Amino acid sequence: MAVTDTLIYLDPDSTLGLQAQIRQKLVDAIMLGTFPEGRRLPSSRKLAEQLGVARNTVVLAYQQLLDEGYLISRERSGLYVNEKVRQDRVGFEGSERQRGALSPRWRQRFRGRSAPEPAFSCPPNWQQYPYPFIEGQFDTSLYPVKEWREASRLALGVREINQWAGESGDADDPMLIEQIRSHILPRRGIQASPDEILITVGTQQALYLAVQLLVDADVPVAVEDPGYPAMRRLLTQRGAPLVHQPVDEEGLVVDERLDSCQLIYVTPSHQTPTAVTMSMARRQAVLALAERNDALIIEDDFEFESNYLNAPHPALRSLDGDDRVIYMSCLSKVLSPGLRLGFMVAAPEVIREARKLRQLMVRHPPLNNQRTAAFFLSLGHYDTFLMHLHDTFRERWIALRRALNYYMLFYVELAPAQGGSALWVRGPKDLDDTFVAKEAARRGILIEPVRHYYASADDAPRNCFRMGITGIPLERIREGVLKLRELFHDLTGNKTETFADARGRHLTGQALRDAVTDTTMICIIAYGDPCTIAIHQGGALVGIAGYSNEDRDQGEWWIENNRWHRRWSRWAWGETGVYDVRLDGDIIKLFDEDGWLIDRAILRRNPVAVDEGAHA
Amino acid sequence: MAVTDTLIYLDPDSTLGLQAQIRQKLVDAIMLGTFPEGRRLPSSRKLAEQLGVARNTVVLAYQQLLDEGYLISRERSGLYVNEKVRQDRVGFEGSERQRGALSPRWRQRFRGRSAPEPAFSCPPNWQQYPYPFIEGQFDTSLYPVKEWREASRLALGVREINQWAGESGDADDPMLIEQIRSHILPRRGIQASPDEILITVGTQQALYLAVQLLVDADVPVAVEDPGYPAMRRLLTQRGAPLVHQPVDEEGLVVDERLDSCQLIYVTPSHQTPTAVTMSMARRQAVLALAERNDALIIEDDFEFESNYLNAPHPALRSLDGDDRVIYMSCLSKVLSPGLRLGFMVAAPEVIREARKLRQLMVRHPPLNNQRTAAFFLSLGHYDTFLMHLHDTFRERWIALRRALNYYMLFYVELAPAQGGSALWVRGPKDLDDTFVAKEAARRGILIEPVRHYYASADDAPRNCFRMGITGIPLERIREGVLKLRELFHDLTGNKTETFADARGRHLTGQALRDAVTDTTMICIIAYGDPCTIAIHQGGALVGIAGYSNEDRDQGEWWIENNRWHRRWSRWAWGETGVYDVRLDGDIIKLFDEDGWLIDRAILRRNPVAVDEGAHA
Repeated sequence: MAVTDTLIYLDPDSTLGLQAQIRQKLVDAIMLGTFPEGRRLPSSRKLAEQLGVARNTVVLAYQQLLDEGYLISRERSGLYVNEKVRQDRVGFEGSERQRGALSPRWRQRFRGRSAPEPAFSCPPNWQQYPYPFIEGQFDTSLYPVKEWREASRLALGVREINQWAGESGDADDPMLIEQIRSHILPRRGIQASPDEILITVGTQQALYLAVQLLVDADVPVAVEDPGYPAMRRLLTQRGAPLVHQPVDEEGLVVDERLDSCQLIYVTPSHQTPTAVTMSMARRQAVLALAERNDALIIEDDFEFESNYLNAPHPALRSLDGDDRVIYMSCLSKVLSPGLRLGFMVAAPEVIREARKLRQLMVRHPPLNNQRTAAFFLSLGHYDTFLMHLHDTFRERWIALRRALNYYMLFYVELAPAQGGSALWVRGPKDLDDTFVAKEAARRGILIEPVRHYYASADDAPRNCFRMGITGIPLERIREGVLKLRELFHDLTGNKTETFADARGRHLTGQALRDAVTDTTMICIIAYGDPCTIAIHQGGALVGIAGYSNEDRDQGEWWIENNRWHRRWSRWAWGETGVYDVRLDGDIIKLFDEDGWLIDRAILRRNPVAVDEGAHA
Repeated sequence: MAVTDTLIYLDPDSTLGLQAQIRQKLVDAIMLGTFPEGRRLPSSRKLAEQLGVARNTVVLAYQQLLDEGYLISRERSGLYVNEKVRQDRVGFEGSERQRGALSPRWRQRFRGRSAPEPAFSCPPNWQQYPYPFIEGQFDTSLYPVKEWREASRLALGVREINQWAGESGDADDPMLIEQIRSHILPRRGIQASPDEILITVGTQQALYLAVQLLVDADVPVAVEDPGYPAMRRLLTQRGAPLVHQPVDEEGLVVDERLDSCQLIYVTPSHQTPTAVTMSMARRQAVLALAERNDALIIEDDFEFESNYLNAPHPALRSLDGDDRVIYMSCLSKVLSPGLRLGFMVAAPEVIREARKLRQLMVRHPPLNNQRTAAFFLSLGHYDTFLMHLHDTFRERWIALRRALNYYMLFYVELAPAQGGSALWVRGPKDLDDTFVAKEAARRGILIEPVRHYYASADDAPRNCFRMGITGIPLERIREGVLKLRELFHDLTGNKTETFADARGRHLTGQALRDAVTDTTMICIIAYGDPCTIAIHQGGALVGIAGYSNEDRDQGEWWIENNRWHRRWSRWAWGETGVYDVRLDGDIIKLFDEDGWLIDRAILRRNPVAVDEGAHA
């Protein structure tokens, strides 16, 4: 019975039950022909013994295979493979396919070769890294399993199957269109009729369709620089002349360089890759420019919901009176990128033309997924999960910002951002992003180098990288940043100040108390916001940060063992920080117990004695 | 409480339960803003009364909305809409979008317009027609609901989600690749390694990818004429010079006209649209020609399994020693076209390039469907359903052929076919396919005109049409053909012979008995096969049809009321046929009770008296 020994190995960790595994393995063996014809199958008792499973498990597996026609039963003789299931196979046993010497030289055959891949790609086993600060990677613990199952079950009702299983020509699921119209677009201020919406296989297909429709070698196109590499590749493939337009803290720069462009590609919600949100003024400006020049705009709104600090701005499409904006987004942020469900919103003429092209490309995105997503939306799960994800990602995002600010203040600066799923980090001048990313990976930290976002790798800064929050759990963030600080420390050869080598007088005892009491520290912050800490006489601390003072906290301070202690209610994880203090003119420097510089601030004596904020 | 009256209408026919419906409607109202802010929701008791449902149903729906954050509960006051769920919406109420006068003139903008749609499209409500002889339409009663649900459930296991939900870059599900390799390709004689397989969004995407990669204005391509219109459109869009190659009863004609082509597109299993299966000789010839001319072949094998009369031939790709064949097929025949799962098998260089292009187009086909299909295959359901479908479609196909042969023998001829899902029907010379299709539709019969399959509509025959069997249940086929005969009868103005006006002597009584006893009728058959009926002295009938006599039946005959009666065991539905008989020289003519000509045959006296086949 060596045959079955090699055939069937049961995986105790499999999600499949034992019976299903036995069935699966037998089907494989039957179809692959590894189970010899005419050979009787082992009795259920024998097989059960060999596999160490209950006999009934084997009996049930055999029974199902009998029902399904894989096996046949011969009276008094036992079970055999039903040769009928193999009869339609065209035989190839023994005839190893011959590769002729004549096979085509493919390189010369390709007429539409694609540009080479971008340099960076996330390691496929990213989930095995303890600190995966990689944007776009999907945290499956956040997947709405139960709710998606419910929606799947509904979409598999017999009436539903009737609607999605057949040839739909080029139509989408009207139920999903309606749900996008009523649940998703209003959040972006967009009104659209059904003939203005097309479902796509992810945002990628929407981009592809728009580029195929609207761009050729005679259409100059503006793209953001740094910007989305796949879009650059699509445009390059069409031979479009590109204008690489810079990005500043308000998003795409709108100036006369755009005047030559017939099409402008822009990611206003969170610029790819800097995550900068385009200001309202800039939105108005780009729309006005487009109108002036009769140009079109592609608005890629893939992360529309993730503003953590302010309410999101309305989409360009919602502000566009001329119907010049082709808007695209996707359901992937909630429903996983693996599902590939996106949509395009544009003038009916554009949708009509895009639909024709889509039909030639793929006919339509799978309708079972469309109907399932429609149920998911209509049952309210999408809204619920959006809120849930939004809260989760906001927590992570703020945690990452805080940790970078606390531990790496003297190494990094962050681009101004109101949300999104990654932070754009500028490191020390002499940093090499690719090298750092590689070294970080060795220590279990994944960060993303950024040069592939630039049109010309030569123009790309070497000292920037991105840290994302979609794949890393909240509780790993602080530790990951700490490990990253160690790496930076090692790489930069201790170039930052430490307690031992820093300038300034070491303050202790009463001198320390006198120096800090009734003062305000004017701090710097990695993400550029203003921040002050008022140190009150009675031991109270009041911290105020942000341009509108929106981030406030309070705490206590005291002196012990000649060190300054502080504990915030929320900031710095509510933990007690213990610092050695040096004063260098009016600059106060705090060093942690390892001698690392944690804070450097201007120290101002409070003008009045009245404690206005101590008990805020 | 008029608010809720208009809000909530419960559909008793919905697949959704009452509780889910209540939840869905409330979510809609909340998100659309039709439920006024600050308004208290009706008590569960009141709402239950209004809707006529159990109070508990409402309580549970409310509870879930509370859990999900749509509603909040204020103590002693009741339930309210949670404004937080609406807070991220960008307001647009009252600001109807203004359409400017400046909106772009789109016609001038489109750089990549698609060719116009083909003329024929199946009515979307085809299922409401009693006789939908339309190919490719999906009979949802054949959908493997239970098995697909099982596979879905497995693919939604937490470990599985981890594998399909995230960004896969450009990779496919390795489990599906393996299943296609081991379960599907061997049936076609194809061996392939994983790097020779690419999953696509239906066969359509495989075609699109191949054309983008291999074709431009400098690459002459051969296509079948008649042939697949979408392929012609794809090639035209790339500007390829086309050679429209005719098709005969062995499939694509292979001759010197193909010598100028660098690429040959062919549908060997069942030619689209004639359903002719390419002969082995022709297969060898096209491969030899391709090798001689260093040309490539695209083999579109969308209906690979459906040979009903003989075993299927091996795919061109399995016979191709030079790796010149790019093979494509799909899972849609079992898993419904709506799922859009296809695959391409080709040299690794081709797959690599196609994968890059696919990434730019759609990244990859949805991975949840890939994993679900992989489970479906690995559990053996695919094979089981393939057998089931094959049997079902064979029955229908044979029933359609039989019915056309019985009722419409003098109106139509069928193209030679061994299977497939449609019959190519040639009607009387003066038929107009479009007109007939329209008239047939009025009588509830859907048939497909064929001129859109031809490169030039002017060259297309007017008197051909297609009748498909994928959408019509077995028990409707005979009736549908009967109705079609009535239509033909009405349209052709009784041009066929009827009993009243036919030539030949009306045989009755002993003359009838003498004329037929111990004779053989040499019949004609609509699908061209030979057929003889031996009429034996003792009242036995033996029928033999097909080129290898593969279709045999036996029956009885007798004379009653001066009419010839016959009853087959299987043929003619095993029913008793009652015929008036005329003899015109050696031509015997049978007329049914309505006077319609049913059979016209040469009558030969049996040479010997020995009854060799009477008790076969």
